[in-house]
Amino acid sequence: MGIDVVPIERFESASLRTAELIDRLFTAAERVTPAGTDRTPESLAARFAAKEALAKALGAPGGMKWHDAEVVVDAGGRPSLEIRGTVAARAAELGVNSLHVSLSHDGGIASAVVIAEG
Amino acid sequence: MGIDVVPIERFESASLRTAELIDRLFTAAERVTPAGTDRTPESLAARFAAKEALAKALGAPGGMKWHDAEVVVDAGGRPSLEIRGTVAARAAELGVNSLHVSLSHDGGIASAVVIAEG
Amino acid sequence: MGIDVVPIERFESASLRTAELIDRLFTAAERVTPAGTDRTPESLAARFAAKEALAKALGAPGGMKWHDAEVVVDAGGRPSLEIRGTVAARAAELGVNSLHVSLSHDGGIASAVVIAEG
Repeated sequence: MGIDVVPIERFESASLRTAELIDRLFTAAERVTPAGTDRTPESLAARFAAKEALAKALGAPGGMKWHDAEVVVDAGGRPSLEIRGTVAARAAELGVNSLHVSLSHDGGIASAVVIAEG
Repeated sequence: MGIDVVPIERFESASLRTAELIDRLFTAAERVTPAGTDRTPESLAARFAAKEALAKALGAPGGMKWHDAEVVVDAGGRPSLEIRGTVAARAAELGVNSLHVSLSHDGGIASAVVIAEG
Repeated sequence: MGIDVVPIERFESASLRTAELIDRLFTAAERVTPAGTDRTPESLAARFAAKEALAKALGAPGGMKWHDAEVVVDAGGRPSLEIRGTVAARAAELGVNSLHVSLSHDGGIASAVVIAEG
């Protein structure tokens, strides 16, 4: 399991300081909503928290690439994690066959929990 | 699974702005402690977080009524979720047969996690 | 399951007010990093959150001693919970045979989630 809590202001200032941070963290698909508009800093911060929580759930072994985990949302807005490459390899190594994720952002705080089951 | 983090000040100002909000969100039993005194805004905010976390755990399909999920506490103060009506129907649809909840509130932040198992 | 969110400033001022608080809450091993340096208030606050989350996951029956639950980290920095005495007895009473923990601290907020499985 993994939890991560991210003050949104902190995430936003880091992303303003480091222009390429958003590109490095998120896939092109993650950076926009299903409607095609840019995601808000709140929404991106929650996705960052999800990736950090996932890394913790997988024992944060290092060597995992940010783009190898992607937060996708279904038609009802429900988030899930799609993994590939380095992250899928780590999950397979641990025998993880199912991932559960939940996101929250409100009043300046983004958070996520991930459970890796298997 | 669902997580929700609620800044208590935000919850409190929303409930002051909208007089009927507390009634809409909580059952009569939820609004008081086992000792019969009114719950603090902190305690209510944590219960609101629990309902939001539950909605997320159930895929937040819409159409669920706030009063159909109730946070109850046992003699030792341990919280659990009682569901009925719209929420019970959704849980049954997903094959959920067990709900776990935990609440936290401290220093301005209320949070809750819910796991729906089945 | 248990969640706990702790504003770090609040934790720090409590520990400054009450000199023996840190000793009461943490084992000698918990108070230092694997490298042997004192843990930061952030890191201790996250460990406090973990103990509170564990207590909630075990139904917070009272009578559990803070030192009977210890957050240990493996070579990769991954945290886990070691329990003994009062806490191990309570876990056995509930049939819990596996504990999962995750910690987070960032920008003033420490948090932890614990799942007790069994």
